[in-house]
Amino acid sequence: MVALAQAGSHAHGATAYVSLEPCNHHGQTPPCSEALIAAALARVVVATRDPDPRTDGGGVARLRTAGIAVQTGVCEAEALRDHAGFLTRVRLGRPAVTLKLAATLDGRIATATGESRWITGPQARRWVHGARARHDAVLVGAGTARADDPSLTVRGLGMVHQPVRVVLSRRLDLPLDSTLGRTARQVPVWICHGPDAPARARDRWDAAGATLIEVAAGPGGQLDGAAALAALGARGLTRVFCEGGGALAATLLAADLVDDLAMLAAGLALGAEGTPSIGAMGIAALSDAPRFALRDTQVLDGDVLSLWSRSAEA
Amino acid sequence: MVALAQAGSHAHGATAYVSLEPCNHHGQTPPCSEALIAAALARVVVATRDPDPRTDGGGVARLRTAGIAVQTGVCEAEALRDHAGFLTRVRLGRPAVTLKLAATLDGRIATATGESRWITGPQARRWVHGARARHDAVLVGAGTARADDPSLTVRGLGMVHQPVRVVLSRRLDLPLDSTLGRTARQVPVWICHGPDAPARARDRWDAAGATLIEVAAGPGGQLDGAAALAALGARGLTRVFCEGGGALAATLLAADLVDDLAMLAAGLALGAEGTPSIGAMGIAALSDAPRFALRDTQVLDGDVLSLWSRSAEA
Ligand SMILES: NC(=O)c1ccc[n+]([C@@H]2O[C@H](COP(=O)([O-])OP(=O)(O)OC[C@H]3O[C@@H](n4cnc5c(N)ncnc54)[C@H](OP(=O)(O)O)[C@@H]3O)[C@@H](O)[C@H]2O)c1
Ligand SMILES: NC(=O)c1ccc[n+]([C@@H]2O[C@H](COP(=O)([O-])OP(=O)(O)OC[C@H]3O[C@@H](n4cnc5c(N)ncnc54)[C@H](OP(=O)(O)O)[C@@H]3O)[C@@H](O)[C@H]2O)c1
Repeated sequence: MVALAQAGSHAHGATAYVSLEPCNHHGQTPPCSEALIAAALARVVVATRDPDPRTDGGGVARLRTAGIAVQTGVCEAEALRDHAGFLTRVRLGRPAVTLKLAATLDGRIATATGESRWITGPQARRWVHGARARHDAVLVGAGTARADDPSLTVRGLGMVHQPVRVVLSRRLDLPLDSTLGRTARQVPVWICHGPDAPARARDRWDAAGATLIEVAAGPGGQLDGAAALAALGARGLTRVFCEGGGALAATLLAADLVDDLAMLAAGLALGAEGTPSIGAMGIAALSDAPRFALRDTQVLDGDVLSLWSRSAEA
Repeated sequence: MVALAQAGSHAHGATAYVSLEPCNHHGQTPPCSEALIAAALARVVVATRDPDPRTDGGGVARLRTAGIAVQTGVCEAEALRDHAGFLTRVRLGRPAVTLKLAATLDGRIATATGESRWITGPQARRWVHGARARHDAVLVGAGTARADDPSLTVRGLGMVHQPVRVVLSRRLDLPLDSTLGRTARQVPVWICHGPDAPARARDRWDAAGATLIEVAAGPGGQLDGAAALAALGARGLTRVFCEGGGALAATLLAADLVDDLAMLAAGLALGAEGTPSIGAMGIAALSDAPRFALRDTQVLDGDVLSLWSRSAEA
């Protein structure tokens, strides 16, 4: 809508390039397909189809019926990646999930006593702040919230829109007098909890300004990871950046809920007493392990960042 | 000697470039310093000094006394790296040690049941064969020898000189009817064992063609890692490529015996039940962890190779 308004009469007979099929339904705005027809474009180039059932090919069909030439599938791979959050929510009813692991060379995220600051260097931590800013929400398990008292905000990058901070805690066993508790009115804190969370804890967190989201319990008494993500998707989140800890990472991986993985490896070794980056997953055979395909690597100071996406074959 | 012989009379008045100070003592050949003087060179450029006490500056002094102009310290960092094996043996009395870790994204080298073939892809495994060929010996713990029945040879790279295969096993508790046992006459097998290794087992491995090296026991009842490496150095090894497993990797790291670390990370997750790439190290605080500085990264198919060297600050 904005582009057409800016183009004015130049749109007449012109070609529009869109990364997503123009929608064909009334949402927050009238259908984009109608607007393109009204602006009398000659041709529309579409990167990828909108799987939303209210559009799903209908936008393209409407343009063609109106006599506009439509070309589809141009730079589709790039568009699928750019729209991963939106598309995952439409297709699977949950946000796209990026799991970050910042670990030693032997996959440890803390010493046996929980010391974890700092394993990676300043440039890696800066990358993490940028990654937070590129997601709608930052997600951690209650163990990390209790152990590290994190703020989970984006810092050091100038003014940015802060992502929602989400914690999974079945019984709301989280200190109110924590950074998250004290700042819940400045930057949103959402807590997914189970049906058995005590009323008193609910009231207190509610009074502190947190948004409480009740989620079904899953196998093993933990919260159901898929249900928690579905609840976040239903509230509009399309991209979630999970920063651990090991127990939550294991739940998400085991349930095949991780789309992208960001691995930061730092040059030190802690040995088997250290806290594992991924907790118990119940995997018996190598062939059962979730597999990821390498997308990119980067050196951040002395740390190695590698980016992986869930393999189609997995 | 070979270069001077090939140069013949061209050497007269010429400049020689050498990566290591010309030796000044009679070893397998007469002193190189004498040969350079006899060939009447005008100038010698030396990358780094030979710390062998029989030379240690004496080679350069002799050349200068003979009226040859000598320049030192050119490309010294590169020479120190090229001669790391030789220099480590002269300085510390042990070979330089490269530790290889081939692990999942969460630092696991096998499933809980010991399944480890294959975590990395063919290109990474090919890189490992090349690395073996660049070392004098391949070293594993008895656990790996028992679990994997490895051959530890260089394969798929055409004719190469095979490195010695070294196993650490306190009581020689290794099956004779293994690949190492059956092939000990084709490619050398050296076994470091403790003073309490049974005579029967010694006789049998000796008869199979293995070289037995008695080493003192260290703390915790395992073999003393430093003593084992010193014994390997005394027998002429200058570069050892250690391929694990986790227990041996932990011993070497904890005793500060690892100079270089080659990390191969594969795109899968196994969770905390998997075998850790590095066993228990007894590290209490992050500041006690051995630190490594990143030297290089490489993508091998879908695996990430990162090369690290022990940090000076560690
Ligand atoms: N280096 C790093 O990048 C990094 C990052 C994060 C964490 N860490 C370290 O990791 C440690 C914490 O890890 P952790 O594994 O103990 O805790 P965690 O994964 O952060 O949290 C686990 C807790 O989350 C709650 N939970 C609710 N639903 C869950 C589900 N479906 N799956 C898993 N957990 C669920 C449970 O607590 P309730 O009983 O309250 O429900 C559970 O005990 C700390 O030492 C921290 O410093 C390091
Ligand atoms: N993915 C990979 O790259 C890779 C590589 C290697 C191994 N692995 C896996 O790792 C597992 C084996 O690892 P592991 O940790 O059990 O065994 P390990 O480290 O290979 O061997 C440990 C054994 O070596 C002997 N040893 C002697 N002196 C020692 C010392 N100073 N320090 C440590 N060990 C000493 C001891 O056996 P004695 O009682 O005989 O003395 C000890 O039990 C297998 O499942 C294998 O498949 C995977």
